[in-house]
Amino acid sequence: MPSYTAPTKDMAFLLHEVLKADKLNIPGYDELEPDFTAAVLEEAGKVASGVLTPLNVVGDQEGCRLENGVVYTPPGFKEAFEQMKEGGWTGLDMPEEFGGQNMPVLLGTAVGEMFSAANQAFTMYQGLTHGAASAILAHGTDEQKATYLPKMVSCEWTGTMNLTEPHCGTDLGLMRTKAEPQDDGSYKVSGQKIFISAGDHDMSENVIHLVLAKIPGGPEGIKGVSLFIVPKFNLNEDGSVSSRNGVSVGNIEQKMGIHGNSTCVMNYDEATGYLLGDMHKGMRAMFTMMNEARLGVGMQGLAQAEAAYQNAVIYARDRLQGRDVTGVKNPDGPADPLIVHPDIRRSLMDQKSFIEGARGFLFWGALLIDQAHRSGDKEADGLISLMTPVLKGFLTDQGFDMTVLAQQVYGGHGYIEEHGMSQFVRDARIAQIYEGANGVQALDLVGRKLAADGGKHVMAFFELIKSYCKGQDGDEMKDFIEPLKTASKHLQAASMFFMQNGMKNPNHALAGSYDFMHLFGHVCLGYAWAQQARAALDALANGATDATFYETKLATARYYMARRLPATGMHLARIESGADMVMALDADAF
Amino acid sequence: MPSYTAPTKDMAFLLHEVLKADKLNIPGYDELEPDFTAAVLEEAGKVASGVLTPLNVVGDQEGCRLENGVVYTPPGFKEAFEQMKEGGWTGLDMPEEFGGQNMPVLLGTAVGEMFSAANQAFTMYQGLTHGAASAILAHGTDEQKATYLPKMVSCEWTGTMNLTEPHCGTDLGLMRTKAEPQDDGSYKVSGQKIFISAGDHDMSENVIHLVLAKIPGGPEGIKGVSLFIVPKFNLNEDGSVSSRNGVSVGNIEQKMGIHGNSTCVMNYDEATGYLLGDMHKGMRAMFTMMNEARLGVGMQGLAQAEAAYQNAVIYARDRLQGRDVTGVKNPDGPADPLIVHPDIRRSLMDQKSFIEGARGFLFWGALLIDQAHRSGDKEADGLISLMTPVLKGFLTDQGFDMTVLAQQVYGGHGYIEEHGMSQFVRDARIAQIYEGANGVQALDLVGRKLAADGGKHVMAFFELIKSYCKGQDGDEMKDFIEPLKTASKHLQAASMFFMQNGMKNPNHALAGSYDFMHLFGHVCLGYAWAQQARAALDALANGATDATFYETKLATARYYMARRLPATGMHLARIESGADMVMALDADAF
Repeated sequence: MPSYTAPTKDMAFLLHEVLKADKLNIPGYDELEPDFTAAVLEEAGKVASGVLTPLNVVGDQEGCRLENGVVYTPPGFKEAFEQMKEGGWTGLDMPEEFGGQNMPVLLGTAVGEMFSAANQAFTMYQGLTHGAASAILAHGTDEQKATYLPKMVSCEWTGTMNLTEPHCGTDLGLMRTKAEPQDDGSYKVSGQKIFISAGDHDMSENVIHLVLAKIPGGPEGIKGVSLFIVPKFNLNEDGSVSSRNGVSVGNIEQKMGIHGNSTCVMNYDEATGYLLGDMHKGMRAMFTMMNEARLGVGMQGLAQAEAAYQNAVIYARDRLQGRDVTGVKNPDGPADPLIVHPDIRRSLMDQKSFIEGARGFLFWGALLIDQAHRSGDKEADGLISLMTPVLKGFLTDQGFDMTVLAQQVYGGHGYIEEHGMSQFVRDARIAQIYEGANGVQALDLVGRKLAADGGKHVMAFFELIKSYCKGQDGDEMKDFIEPLKTASKHLQAASMFFMQNGMKNPNHALAGSYDFMHLFGHVCLGYAWAQQARAALDALANGATDATFYETKLATARYYMARRLPATGMHLARIESGADMVMALDADAF
Repeated sequence: MPSYTAPTKDMAFLLHEVLKADKLNIPGYDELEPDFTAAVLEEAGKVASGVLTPLNVVGDQEGCRLENGVVYTPPGFKEAFEQMKEGGWTGLDMPEEFGGQNMPVLLGTAVGEMFSAANQAFTMYQGLTHGAASAILAHGTDEQKATYLPKMVSCEWTGTMNLTEPHCGTDLGLMRTKAEPQDDGSYKVSGQKIFISAGDHDMSENVIHLVLAKIPGGPEGIKGVSLFIVPKFNLNEDGSVSSRNGVSVGNIEQKMGIHGNSTCVMNYDEATGYLLGDMHKGMRAMFTMMNEARLGVGMQGLAQAEAAYQNAVIYARDRLQGRDVTGVKNPDGPADPLIVHPDIRRSLMDQKSFIEGARGFLFWGALLIDQAHRSGDKEADGLISLMTPVLKGFLTDQGFDMTVLAQQVYGGHGYIEEHGMSQFVRDARIAQIYEGANGVQALDLVGRKLAADGGKHVMAFFELIKSYCKGQDGDEMKDFIEPLKTASKHLQAASMFFMQNGMKNPNHALAGSYDFMHLFGHVCLGYAWAQQARAALDALANGATDATFYETKLATARYYMARRLPATGMHLARIESGADMVMALDADAF
């Protein structure tokens, strides 16, 4: 069975030596002192390794089942969910007035990565609840907040997000689910929603569905969509659970992975719903949580890569196969361990340098969200909006690729289900699809975010990289700054190509959008690695006792710069080839 | 349920317009006239679409089961296998004296691609039989050939290859299975073999296992390994099936994919075996078939990509989602089909340009095998030996990536098992692992094949590309020849780097081996596309009636050159960064 050890030391390094979070002037960040974060991360790591990891394979193999309308989660999930509630892990970054602990998103992200790495399917139950609660927090009336939030913050009640219908996912304007207004101000919601993660289950007393639907007579298309709260069980006046509402599970989907999560077809048949936020402004309400939710999915890509990588390392150290061509390393054994072989190293270094760079990028993104929300920093808000599709798309694409690399280290043993490596691949795959498929992320980035506010945010990003590089002109940083400069130039050239050609024909920009997202991701990881290299050099200069840790950071940073960043040139070449070749064929010529 | 239509027109184009096979002076190739190959491909296509495709999902969902020592294949497999035998498809390229049709490997490869695309798990039963029969053909005594081949060519009896043991796969020198010589010249084989594809099943009267084992007292390690024929049922003097031999199925592995194939743990307990080929020369006997077997696995990568791509195209044409930003394309519908969107095109063009280029490369490889075997052409033999790891590694890596792209076109519908897109991904994954994991292919390429015969074959490859480019210096070929030249220069620079640095430290070559394999693959596909572009231009100049077909080839070739070949620069940069960064960390620093 695969194991997982929370990378607490790497996380602490990012929090305190790279981002220097406790020194930042963001409300609440003063609490993030090293002793405190260490205690939280250590405890969370114990839960991840001890409670969630052992259930990961169980969830995959047993899956969820629907019997007489009731959804049963895999054995052990219910008890583990109780432990999560009791430990207070469900409301870490939710407001204290609703029972949360008001911690920054930054710390919540670190903890979330651990839980996700240990058991993605399980962690989604509380992740979806977090998302739904955030929507109510942002758009609910005081009464709605008082009714739902305390129960949702504690996960006594869980939440879901209902967007997709059989004929539409990305294009929600085609939605058919209807909400008929009733005399008492409520609505009767009818329709079918599919792919509803954590749609129903046996771990909570109630399920609070957030459902997008159209009020008859409203505007056509996406502008006529409203958001509704539809509880599985109606509530009594005192807020306690009463009769069953008109919502039922049609089916549990058979999926490639995340079997432990009940992905449901939900049927709404005149279910009582309550408008959340403004009428016909449902998409806006949904989008409020988008940056955070998509950062959370990007985090899943990294988390699965980390878990898979850890197991690949264990196997590479244990499995004896072949001899080191430069000289026997394990003379007493029948062969040397896999890890002596350069191509295994290449694979492990690709994984390690992605994971630690990606975590730097992710934590920076979480910090920007805190800056935007807690300090009302508009520039931080603009920057994280710009980078959100990159965080989601790049981290999940690369994260998936890394689980494939990790599985490959196991050879045939990776392909059989016994060692759990296949599960990492199958689970990681979903993150490229849900919460906006990665092609839609690329479209959002190039079609919307680049030009937002007159292109201000992307200019700010370039300026940030440029001024960072200027400030790091010493010889010791050359290995990191020069490649970063080159990569950043590639990104600027790509932006310039879009500006010059996209006006004539938007397809010139859109045909390069996916490559642009990856180019952007590499620049962000290059930047994240430069920062980590800087922090490592500083620590070594200050006589850090654990020199190996910092030297390892430097070696890994160098690897990323030399062996991963050159991808930017390829992406630029693809972008600059324009749309004509992409669009050359008639649809029936494929 | 996914569908599959055999790409007969593309195959005919390659056979007759690009390779001009029927004009080549290779024994048996005169039979490959367009009418004849068209008839074979059409019939094979019918079997693939009509018989094998409908069973693909069944095989995935039902899998194989072991009951009281008997392996049962999925419903319908047995009947389909009978049809394959009756149609004579099992011995297409086997000698006539044993009941085959003596067709070239080239035609067998085309037919094999269809069957594999339609149902990889099913087709492996006859694929493994083909491999085992080829080994007996090459190394068996006349009596062994007479005893086994007629039954194996007809697939009345099937075959297996038994190499891997629990503790060793790549490093077979660690093997523990023993073969004790008996007075009658036979051996008693004992040990456990794992991951045995088509290890046992209910579709044939007997299973002929080829088993690698060590004869006690022989040389240490890989040099003491011999190959044995171990039938499931012993044979009577007249060759009919008699009592059960000492071989049994320990388990059927639970795998990520190819569920329809029974991957077995095989236990040998003093099973009667017969030496095949020379004592202690078992690896050589196995390796004789290596080029062909590995080409067959590379073909699987392409085949799964083709099947997945076809279904992605169908979905992209049908699914209405969003509007073309350059103008509505489906004004009568609620939205435009996915295929109008540039990023969907980017994905489909990546797939299409890989598939058709890879098929050109694959067919060329098959032709070289025929040249080597049928004409005794040493240069062809050297060239195909050099390119075999590229065919296997590059085509399966890229083929897998393409199934992921195809799955992504379906969004959430690709992640649920209902549409079969997940199966393409899960099935394609194995081809990167078995028949030598792709890291081992890269090692074989750089550590063995590059320097073989004094580097003669790689020099011949460079010369081939160079002289081809020289002969195509007209303007009309510029879009294809210039990128091919650049890519080829990158490959030469990488080879030069290995030569200059690998002598000092072999790790400088090995650390770049994987990138070299991919760089090499891109050059081969670039060459394959240049040839196809040339043939298309010629056809158009000669007033071909189906101009669209040839113009589509040219547009797809242009796409590959502009959007796929630039990967070579990235691979070269990775290679030239050397081994130091790859090997920088201590094993315990990971």
